[in-house]
Amino acid sequence: MSVSPARPRCSVFIAISADGYIARADGSIDWLSRVERAGEDYGYKRFFDSIDALVIGRKTYDTVLGFGEWPYADKRCIVLTRRPPVAPRSNEVFFAGAPTTLLEQLAQQGVQRVYVDGGAVIRAFLAEGLIDDLVLSVVPLLLGEGVSLFAGRGVERSLRLESSESFASGLVQLRYSLART
Amino acid sequence: MSVSPARPRCSVFIAISADGYIARADGSIDWLSRVERAGEDYGYKRFFDSIDALVIGRKTYDTVLGFGEWPYADKRCIVLTRRPPVAPRSNEVFFAGAPTTLLEQLAQQGVQRVYVDGGAVIRAFLAEGLIDDLVLSVVPLLLGEGVSLFAGRGVERSLRLESSESFASGLVQLRYSLART
Repeated sequence: MSVSPARPRCSVFIAISADGYIARADGSIDWLSRVERAGEDYGYKRFFDSIDALVIGRKTYDTVLGFGEWPYADKRCIVLTRRPPVAPRSNEVFFAGAPTTLLEQLAQQGVQRVYVDGGAVIRAFLAEGLIDDLVLSVVPLLLGEGVSLFAGRGVERSLRLESSESFASGLVQLRYSLART
Repeated sequence: MSVSPARPRCSVFIAISADGYIARADGSIDWLSRVERAGEDYGYKRFFDSIDALVIGRKTYDTVLGFGEWPYADKRCIVLTRRPPVAPRSNEVFFAGAPTTLLEQLAQQGVQRVYVDGGAVIRAFLAEGLIDDLVLSVVPLLLGEGVSLFAGRGVERSLRLESSESFASGLVQLRYSLART
């Protein structure tokens, strides 16, 4: 009888406007350009190098497909969706089950840290207590309207501030951890 | 012919959960207690001493009435509401007109800095480009649901980060200024 490996650590690393939006109503993220600075990636590469797999939602997937080149070729990528899969662009796979089931499978495959991305997927993982750390990069802008990261109907969760860092661009990065429930 | 004095500086100083709520759905702010620390007011007294007048919404007013003692006796306090006024508890007055009209009157009265409080009033002032600075004290907590500070249907506004400070409680205070439009 084998012991199940612990579930992978699940991490969010996302940019939000100061009023809590992750995209305009039409999905566009053009406004992120105001904090683009040469030689400054706000820790993204270090974070990305630390993860073994991505779990993204269908909207994020469709957005990424629009970028042209598939950026995640060297990572496992799971698209969490109940909609019909499309022909994969690269190595991505589609999964229609529950987050906990997916994490059990990933643990069996040796995955230790997962990058959870996309509003709906982040909210689903948060609701089930599956997010371990949350990095919010707050862009100095009120978008006024758009796609909310936190769209209500969520569950109360205590956060522990691990660090906060501000950058010359006006971006403030808040790093939180969540206790496992 | 007299020259109109410049409109007062309009300032927001408000605590929000990391998911952007200023109160639970029932209006309660009990969750602020998790960042209460003896001897630490997160700059509130200094801010409050710098303002000449408060402009608050009806919901905030009703909440403040529930506190028992009226806390704003030594400041002008204007309740922005179209609902029928009640008998004032103290020196508060009711105003049903436009924010710009109110600010013109306050300027004539020598008011130099206004504390704008309450979600609806803050949004109304933001929509008209009347907010000059915005201090967001981000409480380390996801409430999951509640009263949003930014409830959509707003206008895009550029922010300039003036400072960011983190506290032992996990609260991070973001200080932004807005250009006058």
